[in-house]
Amino acid sequence: MVKIGIVGGTGYTGVELLRILASHPEADVRAITSRGEAGTRVVDMFASLRGKYDKLTFTAPDATDLKSCNVVFFATPHGVAMAQARELVNADVKVIDLAADFRIRDVALFEKWYKLKHACPDLLEESVYGLPEFHRDEIRKARIIGNPGCYPTSIQLGFIPLLEAGVVDSEHLIADCKSGASGAGRKAEVGLLLAEASDNFKAYGVSGHRHHPETVQELASRSKTPVELIFTPHLLPMIRGIHSTLYARLTKTDVDVQALFEKRYAGEPFIDVMPPGSTPDTRSVRASNMARIAVHRPGNGDMVTVLVVEDNLVKGAAGQAVQNMNLMFGLPETSGLTAAPVLP
Amino acid sequence: MVKIGIVGGTGYTGVELLRILASHPEADVRAITSRGEAGTRVVDMFASLRGKYDKLTFTAPDATDLKSCNVVFFATPHGVAMAQARELVNADVKVIDLAADFRIRDVALFEKWYKLKHACPDLLEESVYGLPEFHRDEIRKARIIGNPGCYPTSIQLGFIPLLEAGVVDSEHLIADCKSGASGAGRKAEVGLLLAEASDNFKAYGVSGHRHHPETVQELASRSKTPVELIFTPHLLPMIRGIHSTLYARLTKTDVDVQALFEKRYAGEPFIDVMPPGSTPDTRSVRASNMARIAVHRPGNGDMVTVLVVEDNLVKGAAGQAVQNMNLMFGLPETSGLTAAPVLP
Amino acid sequence: MVKIGIVGGTGYTGVELLRILASHPEADVRAITSRGEAGTRVVDMFASLRGKYDKLTFTAPDATDLKSCNVVFFATPHGVAMAQARELVNADVKVIDLAADFRIRDVALFEKWYKLKHACPDLLEESVYGLPEFHRDEIRKARIIGNPGCYPTSIQLGFIPLLEAGVVDSEHLIADCKSGASGAGRKAEVGLLLAEASDNFKAYGVSGHRHHPETVQELASRSKTPVELIFTPHLLPMIRGIHSTLYARLTKTDVDVQALFEKRYAGEPFIDVMPPGSTPDTRSVRASNMARIAVHRPGNGDMVTVLVVEDNLVKGAAGQAVQNMNLMFGLPETSGLTAAPVLP
Amino acid sequence: MVKIGIVGGTGYTGVELLRILASHPEADVRAITSRGEAGTRVVDMFASLRGKYDKLTFTAPDATDLKSCNVVFFATPHGVAMAQARELVNADVKVIDLAADFRIRDVALFEKWYKLKHACPDLLEESVYGLPEFHRDEIRKARIIGNPGCYPTSIQLGFIPLLEAGVVDSEHLIADCKSGASGAGRKAEVGLLLAEASDNFKAYGVSGHRHHPETVQELASRSKTPVELIFTPHLLPMIRGIHSTLYARLTKTDVDVQALFEKRYAGEPFIDVMPPGSTPDTRSVRASNMARIAVHRPGNGDMVTVLVVEDNLVKGAAGQAVQNMNLMFGLPETSGLTAAPVLP
Repeated sequence: MVKIGIVGGTGYTGVELLRILASHPEADVRAITSRGEAGTRVVDMFASLRGKYDKLTFTAPDATDLKSCNVVFFATPHGVAMAQARELVNADVKVIDLAADFRIRDVALFEKWYKLKHACPDLLEESVYGLPEFHRDEIRKARIIGNPGCYPTSIQLGFIPLLEAGVVDSEHLIADCKSGASGAGRKAEVGLLLAEASDNFKAYGVSGHRHHPETVQELASRSKTPVELIFTPHLLPMIRGIHSTLYARLTKTDVDVQALFEKRYAGEPFIDVMPPGSTPDTRSVRASNMARIAVHRPGNGDMVTVLVVEDNLVKGAAGQAVQNMNLMFGLPETSGLTAAPVLP
Repeated sequence: MVKIGIVGGTGYTGVELLRILASHPEADVRAITSRGEAGTRVVDMFASLRGKYDKLTFTAPDATDLKSCNVVFFATPHGVAMAQARELVNADVKVIDLAADFRIRDVALFEKWYKLKHACPDLLEESVYGLPEFHRDEIRKARIIGNPGCYPTSIQLGFIPLLEAGVVDSEHLIADCKSGASGAGRKAEVGLLLAEASDNFKAYGVSGHRHHPETVQELASRSKTPVELIFTPHLLPMIRGIHSTLYARLTKTDVDVQALFEKRYAGEPFIDVMPPGSTPDTRSVRASNMARIAVHRPGNGDMVTVLVVEDNLVKGAAGQAVQNMNLMFGLPETSGLTAAPVLP
Repeated sequence: MVKIGIVGGTGYTGVELLRILASHPEADVRAITSRGEAGTRVVDMFASLRGKYDKLTFTAPDATDLKSCNVVFFATPHGVAMAQARELVNADVKVIDLAADFRIRDVALFEKWYKLKHACPDLLEESVYGLPEFHRDEIRKARIIGNPGCYPTSIQLGFIPLLEAGVVDSEHLIADCKSGASGAGRKAEVGLLLAEASDNFKAYGVSGHRHHPETVQELASRSKTPVELIFTPHLLPMIRGIHSTLYARLTKTDVDVQALFEKRYAGEPFIDVMPPGSTPDTRSVRASNMARIAVHRPGNGDMVTVLVVEDNLVKGAAGQAVQNMNLMFGLPETSGLTAAPVLP
Repeated sequence: MVKIGIVGGTGYTGVELLRILASHPEADVRAITSRGEAGTRVVDMFASLRGKYDKLTFTAPDATDLKSCNVVFFATPHGVAMAQARELVNADVKVIDLAADFRIRDVALFEKWYKLKHACPDLLEESVYGLPEFHRDEIRKARIIGNPGCYPTSIQLGFIPLLEAGVVDSEHLIADCKSGASGAGRKAEVGLLLAEASDNFKAYGVSGHRHHPETVQELASRSKTPVELIFTPHLLPMIRGIHSTLYARLTKTDVDVQALFEKRYAGEPFIDVMPPGSTPDTRSVRASNMARIAVHRPGNGDMVTVLVVEDNLVKGAAGQAVQNMNLMFGLPETSGLTAAPVLP
């Protein structure tokens, strides 16, 4: 059994970790911290978990022994993981940060976008970006994982095969992305109220979103040519799911893009390249760690359109974090992640 | 033209008043106050009103001349209207309070439920409960209106014909009510987030809700016998609309309940008694001041089931307030309130 | 492994059976029939199941060998199971019907409500009503199960403890029930379109619903006194979930209703009696076989209000069917049914 | 008063016409036809219209005197208007077709996409494309209007200012469009059920959609250079609203795109160019004829992103049709179209 601690367990990624780990054959959740809810039983906050974690209680961060865990997940705001990472890794505890502290290699870029001084640039340097489809071997050996953002996961899955193959104009990539409201987190904001955000649709962050630098960094690392990306996030009137519609201009038009994707992701347990002509819907991955991808060339012209769906809380957050944990502890990569999506 | 002031215009009842008054042929909105948003243009907060109120700006309550208005609507939390009512009525300004300050006759009962000392019991005494279908003549002459709550409006419309006729057991009334999320107001609360409240349904306030005493007071005033009411509010995963399912046991079973309702509401411009067998849906009144009612006797037994739908923000709040204003100023009762409901 | 056949697998109960059985350690789905979709691969119809049932194809009913299965689920319209049951039980295949053919003991009553002549009254007589909380031992030995309706399950769970204890007026029971749209099935009807049924709420079947006779039959069998039930179903603007708000008048007011429920359901793996004062939400059981119950006595008066939530497709249909299968085959009752609910 | 006939009034564009015309000071709806619902009262089909059209009944097309009307709206499937247009215009009745019969100039192109032989190419030639912002003068004099599609309206409003100014690469335009489910019409299809389409999001028609040729035709007619368009429609889990996210590469980067849009639409009553940095939401135009537009240049680079929102049933269909009627009959262009959008 892997002894697990969760820091900041009252948000959506926290409760999703609990949901997934409840069915994981090797997971033993020992501790869960929350500054605001210390003393509250987990099941009194999340009735859905009654019967699963009846003895688990949120504890104050300072009063919690995380060093006896094998791994600690940080389901916290940005800045928390980097403050505690050194003490944990020194105690031989692995760290998986679901926030952004260990995603961006360039410290200055991180500090510009997140308005925080980085607490441990040396640990950042050894940390690994936790997208298994592109970093599996490093993840296996890592002590610290920067778990990818939800949007960046979907964009990378859709663009990297094209960039690796060198068949698109990498300087005019467009990612038109739509996310369910849970992506904004479990925080009280007027704009996220049901009465505001349901029966409604809008773009946001058009002139700049924190997931942009992370995405460009990773795309560029796989591309032979410089990468420029237009990224437009939108808020969907629903709870879970990301649909990224990706556009690129082909520089080589005799490429078989369908075959290219099928080959790239052959054997991947969580990537499903759909048959030609498919239009995957977000519910086809609801509550599961699968991502589904369809590739189109409208009118057989020089543009390629890639459709990627994922559950933002699973493959876009908690599920991917568990996938990383499985790799880090030598468990089957799919452990705890095999339940079929919930449809309808 | 009626010169209008609105106190507290940033909530849902405030913006709904603005929406309705934008089409009212006799309305001249002169001032709108907001402590938090003073200096903000109304259209910068509510883009839907661009082109309708381009010159209207929220002003600080203290810096606003409300005494030059003919009427002031209070779309505020409980307690605000009673603090300002005397000054306004002394200046010959009529007051319509959309909160609870002038709804409950019994000062002690008000103070128990709202945890506020009543600021002006004498004005409360002269104030009128603003449900035109039962208080039309008093409203015409009133200086101060306590505009009814959204749930109480629907419950009274459904039960009062039965109580006036003395045909039901008034001590075991049941109101099973369901409201859209806008009824909870435009306030940042986790429980009202789209990610919490959509694709979900629950009861709340089962053991006591502030709309209970107001409702019982009004039902009792129309009943020949004592009134006891079980009231269960529920939160619907949608924006607008209340559906009240009302149950009463008939003490006289030879009554034609359909005829009773049709007769009681004959000529009422905003009450639609549907044909026998109907099941009105909330969208049939969306964004309109209509209430629709259907009366059933399942299995032709001794129980009567009354279904009432209204838009909680219109007949349940802002529309009813405008209806009251029309009556107070001798305007046609339906002025500004004639647009057809929005379906689909 | 239990060899399983599914008749009529293209509806919501069919795909939900497939979802649940995909995680069941003892399930081997051998055959799935569909008249309309014979020849279609299951995963081409339900992309969510890609990777789970890649080799399973819908077959024509006549061309399918169901007799080599150990159990056959009928996820069909009413009337199909009774036509095939004899042949199957004669071949030693157990039958679990998710429709109504084996729910109503009184043949005449069945024929009146379902407008179908019953094909096998003798098998009906030996069949067992598949609500394990009240019929566990008979289910273990049954050859044919009538799997309960979704509404009836929730109503029985909420009323039977009160009826068994003889503490309520059984002749004036009220069940105000609200169901997500999946309860109406996967059929193309205008009234169930998103553009009609979302952002909307309505009652239906107020004067009579097919789940009424089944519910009254089962309530009466547990009651010491005659049962009369007012049942009002409503359509919720969401996919999954039933919330039943149940009202009864106490004939003995010194009863501790909370204790009564806790005692009745002690040890039940899928019934969660919530702490006093709770208001369970439907999402707390989303995609799970749990039912959660809260008991209230508003104002400490003579009325008891019981709130019951379940997922209509799981405890209200496919999950309960699998629970029955587990009992019939001597498997742990919770096999395949232990995943935590999906929240948010 | 304008005497009005509506052919095919049972769909969403039909009922929306009725809703809008109910508040139009010069509208007199004389006749409404429906093959399937002949004899049904309009208010028995659409309860929302009770009290507005109590005497209007659907009549069989053949039995309806449309020639005594001044204008006939066709809210029908494609092919109906062209079959009846000649008879009507010969009788001096103006025709506004909300389907596609009079949108596409090139008969062969029409016949290819709609699989219908065009019934009256000569009338097609004289007909006018009813987008007032670009064809106002011709509309005033027209006898037959091809009312634009919902998607094409939004795409044209967003791209034409850029094309007219000749500042973008017109051969690589991208329109990533999202529509509420009412855009698919009031027809019983499994994929449009609430249980399928809510809490879900997907693209469709990626490889070809009927609105593509119409859009390209109109864009090309305003462009100095050839037009190629990638058009990706998506289905939103909500009822009303289109959000088009448009991408183009600037060929001149010293252009002030904000000023360009503001100048182009100055004085337009239904086009609102939002302030720089805006992200309009669809609810800001819900149930209104407004379109709102925001123009962005992310990172101040060589790409321009244009956001356009409209209500697909109003500016995208029935509202635009009424706007056209107003122009054709010399009425104020905004008659019947001035109600504020419904928010929340």
